[in-house]
Amino acid sequence: MVQDRMRRVAIDMDEVMADTMAHYLQRYNEEFGQSLTTTDFHGRFVFEVIDAAHRERVREYFEQEEFFAGIPVMPGSQDVVQELTERYEVFITTAAMDVPCSFTAKFFWLQQHFPFISTKNIVFCGDKSIIAADYMIDDNVRHLRNFRGEGILYTAPHNIYEQAFRRVDNWQDVRRLFLDR
Amino acid sequence: MVQDRMRRVAIDMDEVMADTMAHYLQRYNEEFGQSLTTTDFHGRFVFEVIDAAHRERVREYFEQEEFFAGIPVMPGSQDVVQELTERYEVFITTAAMDVPCSFTAKFFWLQQHFPFISTKNIVFCGDKSIIAADYMIDDNVRHLRNFRGEGILYTAPHNIYEQAFRRVDNWQDVRRLFLDR
Repeated sequence: MVQDRMRRVAIDMDEVMADTMAHYLQRYNEEFGQSLTTTDFHGRFVFEVIDAAHRERVREYFEQEEFFAGIPVMPGSQDVVQELTERYEVFITTAAMDVPCSFTAKFFWLQQHFPFISTKNIVFCGDKSIIAADYMIDDNVRHLRNFRGEGILYTAPHNIYEQAFRRVDNWQDVRRLFLDR
Repeated sequence: MVQDRMRRVAIDMDEVMADTMAHYLQRYNEEFGQSLTTTDFHGRFVFEVIDAAHRERVREYFEQEEFFAGIPVMPGSQDVVQELTERYEVFITTAAMDVPCSFTAKFFWLQQHFPFISTKNIVFCGDKSIIAADYMIDDNVRHLRNFRGEGILYTAPHNIYEQAFRRVDNWQDVRRLFLDR
């Protein structure tokens, strides 16, 4: 008896499984005595919002391995990703090539918070058009546009005005979309 | 005027662009006073050949970042990969997830020896079935079997008895196959 092959879901890390923005906003506000919130970033990327004078310093956050180690898990992602692995082939596909120091930290972050994901199913890449999967959950429309399968946009402040992709606002939405059927 | 899209070639690092075996054989022979050559590995993987008592030590080679930095470039690969980039989309696809300490070393090895490859086109993965490309040049039949495009087997001692894939013995063969037409 031949079963249909499992459908494959590629899931992004930053702003999808990892609440990277919460982490650097907290750090930025502490360091510069500001009170930026996610609403300040609606429709804009981080370097369009923060003071030009601070940009270099914020770039430095991302050049420190311990920055990545401290990023909190996106609420609900652990449970839902684990449930997804029961019905889908799950790959973690993260654009890591811009920040070489992040490789090891990202790998161990996944091992720590998502230990049920096989290391074979982790992909560090740059251009996500290289990913062969049926679905891709990502906060970055650029990656979804280059993807050959069906792109699902995970809501993040910078993408809230995007209209081109089916959208999920949180991990409960992911559960409904992928598991309640 | 719409042009046909460029065909995409995924190229493996170890034993294809990087002469990893030459590097660890030299180190092993020096350390243990032996004179193993590549012929001793025909049809077999490294851990099937070396003394059981030395296996742990050889595993340690691969846990040191400087080991990767010292690996020589496979003869001819630089010229031919550069020529390939003129007619194909070239991605470097390397199974790095078994050896987390290799990420950064592999990245900088590529920057040093193949500076014309965009970092966006580098992929660190485990299971290469995730790669979306037209061709894959790899020494490992397991990766080629999982690949959805056309697999090209790059000759290495361990794979010389494999019959299932079109084979290239060296980078001049790659040039003939991909560029002389």
